[in-house]
Amino acid sequence: MRPPHPVPLARARLLTSPSVSPSLVRELERIAGRPADTAVPDGPFVYVGDALPEALRTPRLLWFHSVNAGTDALLSAGPWPEGALLTRTVGRMGERIAQYVLGWVLAECQAVPEHTAQHARGEWRRLPSELAAGRTVVVHGTGRIGSAVAGLLRACALRTVGVSRTARGPVPGFDRVVTAGSDEEATALGEARWVVSTLPSTGATEGFFDAGRFTAMRGATFVNVGRGATVDMTALGAALHAGTLRGAVLDVLPAEPAAPGDPVWRLPRTVITSHSAGITAEEDVVADFAACWADVAGGRTPALAVDTRRGY
Amino acid sequence: MRPPHPVPLARARLLTSPSVSPSLVRELERIAGRPADTAVPDGPFVYVGDALPEALRTPRLLWFHSVNAGTDALLSAGPWPEGALLTRTVGRMGERIAQYVLGWVLAECQAVPEHTAQHARGEWRRLPSELAAGRTVVVHGTGRIGSAVAGLLRACALRTVGVSRTARGPVPGFDRVVTAGSDEEATALGEARWVVSTLPSTGATEGFFDAGRFTAMRGATFVNVGRGATVDMTALGAALHAGTLRGAVLDVLPAEPAAPGDPVWRLPRTVITSHSAGITAEEDVVADFAACWADVAGGRTPALAVDTRRGY
Repeated sequence: MRPPHPVPLARARLLTSPSVSPSLVRELERIAGRPADTAVPDGPFVYVGDALPEALRTPRLLWFHSVNAGTDALLSAGPWPEGALLTRTVGRMGERIAQYVLGWVLAECQAVPEHTAQHARGEWRRLPSELAAGRTVVVHGTGRIGSAVAGLLRACALRTVGVSRTARGPVPGFDRVVTAGSDEEATALGEARWVVSTLPSTGATEGFFDAGRFTAMRGATFVNVGRGATVDMTALGAALHAGTLRGAVLDVLPAEPAAPGDPVWRLPRTVITSHSAGITAEEDVVADFAACWADVAGGRTPALAVDTRRGY
Repeated sequence: MRPPHPVPLARARLLTSPSVSPSLVRELERIAGRPADTAVPDGPFVYVGDALPEALRTPRLLWFHSVNAGTDALLSAGPWPEGALLTRTVGRMGERIAQYVLGWVLAECQAVPEHTAQHARGEWRRLPSELAAGRTVVVHGTGRIGSAVAGLLRACALRTVGVSRTARGPVPGFDRVVTAGSDEEATALGEARWVVSTLPSTGATEGFFDAGRFTAMRGATFVNVGRGATVDMTALGAALHAGTLRGAVLDVLPAEPAAPGDPVWRLPRTVITSHSAGITAEEDVVADFAACWADVAGGRTPALAVDTRRGY
């Protein structure tokens, strides 16, 4: 997590992955003050991209800047090169994911899919709506994303309870924060109208949403904007079939993309949104790489650095 | 608009329309401190309901409390009895309509109908989303409902411009307020991503959204939670077919309900929601009738009184 030493950084080459667009490459060159190479250099290099090929996992890699927020695929693809800094793009991710969550919460309250279907049939029929204001939402994960989600929901008058590994002091956006696995978490799950997960995928979060947690939810809708591996899909399916879970909005799945015949498409009262929440835009990458560069040039560890052992 | 005189009010009977449920009748009896009559009395009476039959449009009607927020149908059904107070139920209407508007704004940004359709086909495909934050919404009508709508949208970081007959000082929820028909209104319509109408139906608002206003909108989505008669449907259809108007969400129509074969169902990029925004609940009627009763008993004109000449 320490920034690269200034001496090798000064002579490091800039490399980008094939998925990076030419216009973005020009912006990265401007920020780094050097042209981007096309061939792999012999000396130290800084890499910007979405994936790190095996051939580039060498001690010559000083710094990898990910164009995405999630770095679990990067870290699980092989051992991370010793001493290489890993930073990521968050951009307006918090805002984007918060608007996704609020959008789906209100779509349920306002019966958007039902109205759309009625309209297609040319049918005039009043449908009841539900007031989200005053209801309780439990948000797992109290980092940047969780805090942004809770903040927006609270601005719409929902009651927000956060769940974190270790409940510390007040967190922006949350009315209160409880510890994962505590009795308070179970109580909050029972009161929740929505349960939103923003958890990253780490060894510690695999299968976090298990039968116990889904059984504790009574009439909640589960929204996953974190990672698919945090959910025990068998337990989720059982709770949906039993009817104790009202519905599910899944942006992520343990195995993506889901094939057309995958049984996950047939889970009752569920919508899957193909990992569309919080896609980073080019402007996000430019802003975050520039911020990281400024930190690194000043000898500081960027705020967007990833602890490669913890995985976030 | 003056409250009934205490002497006739003290001996007035309470009448309710057939649509009022037995449980609501009991609540109204409790508030009024007298039993509800079933037959039309010879003397003065207070009426609570959704419509006023011709036979009850007499000088013996001291006060009509509407269980709905809109009173245009009541007032256009015949001359209003001289001196009779008219009050209405607003309840949490502002909150309900605000959540409806925000729900449909975000449903568009998050492509909720498109995701729902993809899910039904078992198709995994990332769809782009749009960030509502920072975009401009123009809200016509700066009364209770318009102010509630703007306040919620502003809480989600949208820029809010109000349009009123006479732009006065600051109005809660609005970044600024402009006068209807001014150049500033035309400029705001051209910048708007959404144009939301909360206008009531009065002689002065009929056909308010005409060809001029729809032509001034450039890429906006039009949301109508006011009254259908305020819209020139031919002009709306032309703007949708021309593509200068991005889409429409219509809770109300000039003629309701729309028959299954009505061409309105085939307007492009439009959804009609069957007058479902802000349905009042029984608890709303109880709370608002009780507040009006307290005002009337104290000799004050209730805040929920309707000016029967202006129509709101």
